[in-house]
Amino acid sequence: MDRWPKDVGIRAIHVVIPSLYVDQTDLERYDRVSEGKYTVGLGQKQMGFCTDLEDVNSLCLTAVSQLVENNGLSYSDIGRLEVGTETIVDKSKSAKTVLMKLFEATGNFQVEGIDTTNACYGGTAALFNALAWTESSAWDGRLAVVVAADIAVYAEGGARPTGGAGAVAMLIGPDAALVVDRGLRGTYMNHAYDFYKPDMCSEYPVVDGKLSVECYLNALDRCYESYLSKCRDGGDDVRGGLDRFDSFVFHAPYCKLVRKSLARLCANDFVHRRGDESGWPAPELRERLRLRPAALLDRDVEKTFVERSAAVFADKTEPSLALASRVGNTYTASVYGGLASYLMSVPPERLAGKKIGVFSYGSGLASSMYSVRVVDNNGLSVLIGNLKKGFDRLGQRTRLTPEQFADVLDVRQKCLHRAPYVPTGDRDRLFPGTWYLSRIDEMRRRYYERKE
Amino acid sequence: MDRWPKDVGIRAIHVVIPSLYVDQTDLERYDRVSEGKYTVGLGQKQMGFCTDLEDVNSLCLTAVSQLVENNGLSYSDIGRLEVGTETIVDKSKSAKTVLMKLFEATGNFQVEGIDTTNACYGGTAALFNALAWTESSAWDGRLAVVVAADIAVYAEGGARPTGGAGAVAMLIGPDAALVVDRGLRGTYMNHAYDFYKPDMCSEYPVVDGKLSVECYLNALDRCYESYLSKCRDGGDDVRGGLDRFDSFVFHAPYCKLVRKSLARLCANDFVHRRGDESGWPAPELRERLRLRPAALLDRDVEKTFVERSAAVFADKTEPSLALASRVGNTYTASVYGGLASYLMSVPPERLAGKKIGVFSYGSGLASSMYSVRVVDNNGLSVLIGNLKKGFDRLGQRTRLTPEQFADVLDVRQKCLHRAPYVPTGDRDRLFPGTWYLSRIDEMRRRYYERKE
Repeated sequence: MDRWPKDVGIRAIHVVIPSLYVDQTDLERYDRVSEGKYTVGLGQKQMGFCTDLEDVNSLCLTAVSQLVENNGLSYSDIGRLEVGTETIVDKSKSAKTVLMKLFEATGNFQVEGIDTTNACYGGTAALFNALAWTESSAWDGRLAVVVAADIAVYAEGGARPTGGAGAVAMLIGPDAALVVDRGLRGTYMNHAYDFYKPDMCSEYPVVDGKLSVECYLNALDRCYESYLSKCRDGGDDVRGGLDRFDSFVFHAPYCKLVRKSLARLCANDFVHRRGDESGWPAPELRERLRLRPAALLDRDVEKTFVERSAAVFADKTEPSLALASRVGNTYTASVYGGLASYLMSVPPERLAGKKIGVFSYGSGLASSMYSVRVVDNNGLSVLIGNLKKGFDRLGQRTRLTPEQFADVLDVRQKCLHRAPYVPTGDRDRLFPGTWYLSRIDEMRRRYYERKE
Repeated sequence: MDRWPKDVGIRAIHVVIPSLYVDQTDLERYDRVSEGKYTVGLGQKQMGFCTDLEDVNSLCLTAVSQLVENNGLSYSDIGRLEVGTETIVDKSKSAKTVLMKLFEATGNFQVEGIDTTNACYGGTAALFNALAWTESSAWDGRLAVVVAADIAVYAEGGARPTGGAGAVAMLIGPDAALVVDRGLRGTYMNHAYDFYKPDMCSEYPVVDGKLSVECYLNALDRCYESYLSKCRDGGDDVRGGLDRFDSFVFHAPYCKLVRKSLARLCANDFVHRRGDESGWPAPELRERLRLRPAALLDRDVEKTFVERSAAVFADKTEPSLALASRVGNTYTASVYGGLASYLMSVPPERLAGKKIGVFSYGSGLASSMYSVRVVDNNGLSVLIGNLKKGFDRLGQRTRLTPEQFADVLDVRQKCLHRAPYVPTGDRDRLFPGTWYLSRIDEMRRRYYERKE
């Protein structure tokens, strides 16, 4: 047994969304900004949020327990569990250790993995680690679970409507319905202060919006070229560029950036003469971009590619934005919410054989591009059936006013460091089966309960 | 190529220790505690510490740059770099991304891995991830680097003398001199509030000292039995118990706990009738412990095993405490400082063939036990030669008074969240080749320079 098992990848996915949301048109009015600034300018419809009843630990507890229950697993089937998050509530104790409460009844304490952090990239790092574990000599034949969970909140101002909250839990193992392509991975890491959280006493990040978009799009270019060069090394013909993907999903800080990102990949194909050239801009533009790649950020150039890629976007990427547009940015969970959204958008009988490109970005910065093949096995229909349970919650949420939303964020920020503390949020509004923070004691220990 | 490469493990180690230290006898007098409370009661001789010139990023920069230089590597030889730490200075941006500055000149930005956190366990999680990566389909043939770095400081009081600071960087790959045994890994994870850092505005942890010792020793029992059962599954005869190890190294919060831990393993062997039984306590005690395992914590029982295991301790574990006793607790780096200390204690020509047991513990809690075989190849003498460079610093440090030490910690705590900020520590006292924090700007971005 010194070989990798077959078809290692994602065997199940579960998404957790907050039970509360605010409408972005309501927010536009409340913030007295021009109509469409959030809904068209950012491409956001609604934003999910949590009261002080939920923190990163409770989100992870909800995601993992529902993943296990929906898939009829025992906690003793799990040999590895890793959490990706940037919503840190303790500088030392990992969310993973809080999750071990769930394993207690089965007596399974042999569960590798802890937490991993770099902005929105933690879920991807956790996934990569789980895949490698399954292929390594440390694998004990059991399944791995990866959880990506975050609460994205911003100080009052321009970035606030780009918040969100949520979690995605994934079951990793061999014979998966979503097989991660081996050896096809482009990674780009660099040192940048585009978005970071240096104020340990606040939930809010420091954001350099313009720099962050530049860093994101540059990382996208680098990962795409690196991904394609790995394909070439493996003997693939990459002259089709994006044609090789049935879908492409992106980390989604807000949907408009994803729109630009898909256009950016098309621009890369154009510059490198990949894919169908009919209907694309004149060769003069190609020469201009070759001489000055930074011109891709010029407004007219970007607009050209956004317009010309409209059909590709509608086909390959727009379906992946269902959660992102209605829940907002879920940081580490965002790109996996995108993957889940795409899977839900295709009739199950037509999913097998689909090839999905994935781009994960975390400010600071860490980014990777890889691909997933949907494989037709019994697990596929179960995966889709279970995934639907999380999506059904979208229509069952409570819409609050911008005033109520602002109040909730005020409470969160003010009580962030209070101890002892009993959360004041309304438990009645939580979905059944949700874990919540019941209290923080005078030693700042956190206690959790589950809503029936 | 779907097989694991040969002899995957640690190819090089570099330790970084602070240039400043305080003597524990001086501290005893300053704290007006009984003579020997720290030196005998805790087993500590000296404690290393850092001024405000050093943070987790600078420690990692120093460790990685010196590892690369000492071993004649290029930054383009590295395909993965992961940091284990619990000294978080940003809730989102990883130390790993700051380290990417070092890679800039070579144009190598394809470097997987971010930061991983659970108390003192982060270095071990990073090591396990690096080993798995090297055995996985994601491996691109390059080397991995693991950095464990922390600054351990405590509020005034009983725990303060158990601080420390330091970093260990390790080069991971095939054909290693320190081969990590495949499939032999015992892991125990659980939910506990024994030591944690819920106050995000402070560098200091909350510690339940008694609970932490209980959690540590219980985790040790569980990992040992699990490790041995993996050995049995692989066909090994485990009746010799600890005899199978030439050395056993432990995470060292303070040296006295390591002394008790070695005794605890001996007690486990006694209870399960492993190893040489001559000279051990009467069988009545075995029966008592079988009926009530918690009796292992009874003072008289513990004393019995500490006394009877004196020779085993002197042989297998005491040599691993060179750094721990003179630098203190380095959290994630501690157990790797223990491994390095053992390697330095054996004449190089007698190292080959040695089998080293490793126990890693992080509060919260996460723990693992595994083993390393020293393999005689060309890399071994280079590893030892380079390792010595870090150890030579022990004799070149500056001894400060307890008053000066307390002042340094006051400055650290007061300035932790100040921005803009220019550190006030004395650069002249840093060792040559040390990276340090030169300033924090008004946007809380951190800038680093290197001392010539």
